[in-house]
Parts: sequence; C-alpha cells; structure tokens
Amino acid sequence: MKLFYAPGTCALAPHIILEEVGASFTLEKVDFAAGQQTSPEYLKLNPKGRVPLLVDGDFSLTEAPAILHHIAERFPEAGLTPPPGTRERARMNEWLNYLSSGVHIAFSYIMRPHRYTDDTSAHPGIVEKGRTVFYDCFRLIEERMPEDGWLVGSYSVADPYLGTMYRWGNRAGYTMKQDFPRLGAHAERLSARPAVQRALATEGITLEDRPS
Amino acid sequence: MKLFYAPGTCALAPHIILEEVGASFTLEKVDFAAGQQTSPEYLKLNPKGRVPLLVDGDFSLTEAPAILHHIAERFPEAGLTPPPGTRERARMNEWLNYLSSGVHIAFSYIMRPHRYTDDTSAHPGIVEKGRTVFYDCFRLIEERMPEDGWLVGSYSVADPYLGTMYRWGNRAGYTMKQDFPRLGAHAERLSARPAVQRALATEGITLEDRPS
Repeated sequence: MKLFYAPGTCALAPHIILEEVGASFTLEKVDFAAGQQTSPEYLKLNPKGRVPLLVDGDFSLTEAPAILHHIAERFPEAGLTPPPGTRERARMNEWLNYLSSGVHIAFSYIMRPHRYTDDTSAHPGIVEKGRTVFYDCFRLIEERMPEDGWLVGSYSVADPYLGTMYRWGNRAGYTMKQDFPRLGAHAERLSARPAVQRALATEGITLEDRPS
Repeated sequence: MKLFYAPGTCALAPHIILEEVGASFTLEKVDFAAGQQTSPEYLKLNPKGRVPLLVDGDFSLTEAPAILHHIAERFPEAGLTPPPGTRERARMNEWLNYLSSGVHIAFSYIMRPHRYTDDTSAHPGIVEKGRTVFYDCFRLIEERMPEDGWLVGSYSVADPYLGTMYRWGNRAGYTMKQDFPRLGAHAERLSARPAVQRALATEGITLEDRPS
C-alpha cells in the first residue's frame, strides 16, 4: 500500500493506522507548498486534488474515514474498529463523520478562506468565524468524549483522527491542553503509543506543535 | 426507532433506508421554519442542533453516514452495505464521506452563508462561490459514478444519500437530469423503488423538485 500525504494534514490519521496494523507501506509526500496537489500528474491519481490518497494494489481510495475503515478491514486482527452492529461502532462512525464534515471543515475556514468566496476582502471575516466555530467544535467534543481511555471504549481508527485535529487546534493558537483537559489527556495517551510516535517522527511534527 | 427529520434535508436518506429495511419506526418532524432545531428541548436531544437524529431505544446517534451504517447493521438481511474488506464497501464509504463533507458542505454555502462569516455583505459572494463549487461536485460525481446501476454495484445506503443531494441540485436551479445524465438516470431508478416512493410521499417532495 502507498499513502500520498502531506505532513500534518489529515493524512496523519491513516499514516498512524498503517503503523498500528504493521502494514508494509510506502509514503509519497505531496508538496503542498509547490501546489503539487493540483498538478496534472496528481489530479490523474486523485481528481479531488487532496490528500490522503491510498493506493492499494490497483485500487485507489480517497476520503480519510473511508481509508481508515479500509486499512482496519484489511487487518482485522488489529481490532481497530468495533464489530458491526455494536453501539461502539455506531459511535465511532459518528465521530469519524463529525471530525470530517464538522471539525475539519471549520479548520478550513481559517486555513483556506478562498474556498468560500472569491471576494478576498471577505476572507478575514471567514477566518474570524472559523476561529469561533473551530473552537466550539472542541467544546462539544470535550463535553461528549469519555473522561478517560479512548473515544469508543477500545482504541479505534477515530482516535488518531481526533489527535490530528487536536494538533490543528494547537496550530491555530488555542491552548488545547489547558482549555480541554480531556482532549489533552487523550492526546497524551495517543503520543505514548509507539506507532503514533513513529508516524509523528516521520512527519517531523508533534501533537503539541504551536503556530508557526 | 425514531428518526428526527425535516422534509428534504439529508435526513431523507436514513428515512428511505428505514423504509427499505422494513423497520418499525416513527418520524418526528423538527420545524426548521420555527427554529425548533435550536430550541432548548431539541438541543438536549442533539447538542449539534441538526437533523438527522436517530433514537434507537436508549441510544441516540447523529451524523447521516453513521445513522445509515447503523440501520444497515441492525438489519443485515437487507444487504444494504457490501461486506467488510471488499472494494465495494471501501468505495461506498468514500461516497458517503464525500457526500457529507464535500457535496453537503458546498450546498450549505448557498443555503446558510451565515455559517461562514458574520459579515452579511460577504454572504452573496459565498452563495455565488457555493453555486460553482456545488455544481463542480456533480461534475466530479457524474464522471466517477458508474454508467448504469447503483453507486457500488448493488444498491447500498450511499444511493439514497446521493439522491438526496441530486434533489438539492434541482432545488438550487440546476437542470440536473439534462446536465448530468448518469445522475438523472440514477435518480429515476431510485424514484422507482417503492421504499423511496413512500419516504418521498411522506415528506411531500420529489427528486425533481424545482426551486421554490
């Protein structure tokens, strides 16, 4: 399997999960600074012009939650998704979708306001709104997540995905550990896992990175 | 099971799937015109202030893709998700996440520009951008979806979710059937299913509804 990624993007979550399952995989860095994600070569691989992209033999897959599920299903012995039909699984899917369609999107107001309007004079207002909405997402997460342990009982693919966005909160300048103690403790547990440490080291980042 | 919905929202997809599996369920209409989704009573049930919300006994679940998976897993004999580990399942999850975090979000620029900035003078620019981005989503879908049949081979929970957004394209004023023949034919096949017809009739809508 080959994972197309850029450091610190949401591709970090599948990167961690590839490490967790002990898959044999290669990483292919997409150079966002050089706009490589919208190069004709990359768009041929992924017309969406985004990462992550997983190439598994002759099968290509986009969308972080789908990739997370796919890796977990290819390595069922790792037990990274609760069994079908359980509440834990439903809750995990709820987290995955909220992180993807709620939290990630809110962060994109801050990072990529041009996605929302061509009127550049409106961009500061979108960034400002993003800072409120993104922060509010963490308030909701802090309230709804368990006090201890992992998001849905046992460790699942939703945990590194949350950790990725926790890091984004720090990058946005929020004092995450201080403002959101449950999230902070979760990130600490995450950072103690060897697979997570390997992925973070490869990408040259930590979950507590501050704004650059 | 009880589904909290509002007519024509993305709750239509789980509504259809409840009909498909033959579940015994009740519908609870949330009055969006009266702002009932942000009433204290509803926020107690769902702090996100959105629909759909599924209440299954003492278990509450949000996020359309998670609800779709959950219903399918509660009624495995209906066969509405491909088996774990298959490419069809990975592809279905990819569609679900793209529809949720890409297509639905693009539609929200048009319908709810206030989510993106408090600067009301910027709202027309966001709506305009939404009209382009939302349309481009359908171009990508039309290119990537199969020429015939369902999204991932056999009928799955992703199909009524796509149909819901196809309807939104019509509501946004696009001539969907004309501009996107595969999507149009898919919507026709969908509309021919008795379960889909029951759900649409209950909500008082069709997939070809024009702007109001």
